Amino acid sequence: MAHIQLSEGLPGIRGLFAFRPETARPLSELAQVLLHTPGTLAMAERELIATYVSSRNDCYYCQTSHGALAAYHLGGDEQLVLDVKRDFESAAISEKLKALLAIAGKVQHSGKDVGPDDIARARGHGATDLEIHDTVLIAAAFCMYNRYVDGLGTWAPSDLESYRQRAAQVGANGYLAILAAQATR
Amino acid sequence: MAHIQLSEGLPGIRGLFAFRPETARPLSELAQVLLHTPGTLAMAERELIATYVSSRNDCYYCQTSHGALAAYHLGGDEQLVLDVKRDFESAAISEKLKALLAIAGKVQHSGKDVGPDDIARARGHGATDLEIHDTVLIAAAFCMYNRYVDGLGTWAPSDLESYRQRAAQVGANGYLAILAAQATR
Repeated sequence: MAHIQLSEGLPGIRGLFAFRPETARPLSELAQVLLHTPGTLAMAERELIATYVSSRNDCYYCQTSHGALAAYHLGGDEQLVLDVKRDFESAAISEKLKALLAIAGKVQHSGKDVGPDDIARARGHGATDLEIHDTVLIAAAFCMYNRYVDGLGTWAPSDLESYRQRAAQVGANGYLAILAAQATR
Repeated sequence: MAHIQLSEGLPGIRGLFAFRPETARPLSELAQVLLHTPGTLAMAERELIATYVSSRNDCYYCQTSHGALAAYHLGGDEQLVLDVKRDFESAAISEKLKALLAIAGKVQHSGKDVGPDDIARARGHGATDLEIHDTVLIAAAFCMYNRYVDGLGTWAPSDLESYRQRAAQVGANGYLAILAAQATR
């Protein structure tokens, strides 16, 4: 049971969005810009960064929902998502993404952990300032979303199929569609 | 020097806002709703929560700028801000705020650390669901802002007077005025 009175039918952050629409809007807009607008990092790559940070923060709802989104954008490759969570350095991803995941892992612990060597590694594999910026902000933002979801004791479905179905909707329509759908419930 | 190329004149998160206006907007709107809209928690109380979490994350820019904002809303009582950062349980604040700061401190480490006892303590001192929600989200949001500011290696002024002057502007006009001011630079 959540720590505050939420609509029972909505898991994770969705129950919190229904409880407080005033904060749901900027939180959704931030996710939309970082994860679902056109950019030089693929949506799959950005969702992998979100999933990895959520996994390190041990947030079941976030790592499972964003892991399903990463797999959606990867054409269903759930194994790659698991590989990235387990040991991204040996996963079948680009060297640039490995360098960005290394930065994200530092940010998950503390922003102060990011050093010139981490940045140099990313740049050495072609990362731009904007890609480095967005990686740091995605990692920082999931340190927020994860704490928000777990700090208020929200519930999460245990069946993976519900996450796959949800990921197909959000993957196709983006994060602002969540707000629109909740407004018409 | 910051890890990416930023406008040199703008410290902390302000340089990042100028670099990426698309994310500056939702980040500022979130701060505005949580810290600067009318509510049952005083603006000073909310800024104290932000300051305390930023202090625990060792983010100099955030704890100093929001500490200055807390002092602004407290009529200039900088000592109380220091007292809260040092040991809020013995500071001259309400029992309700102490209970909310205890929740914020848990969230700073992990959302999973918040337990029924923490919630019961806050409720016992009159905290509402909305106040508990906003406390958790303020704490979670500053775990983001702190990592964003430090993870990209931004610079921070060392003279306290500049923070006081800035706090008088933001305290009077709110967080969205930052965006408007930067847009007309």
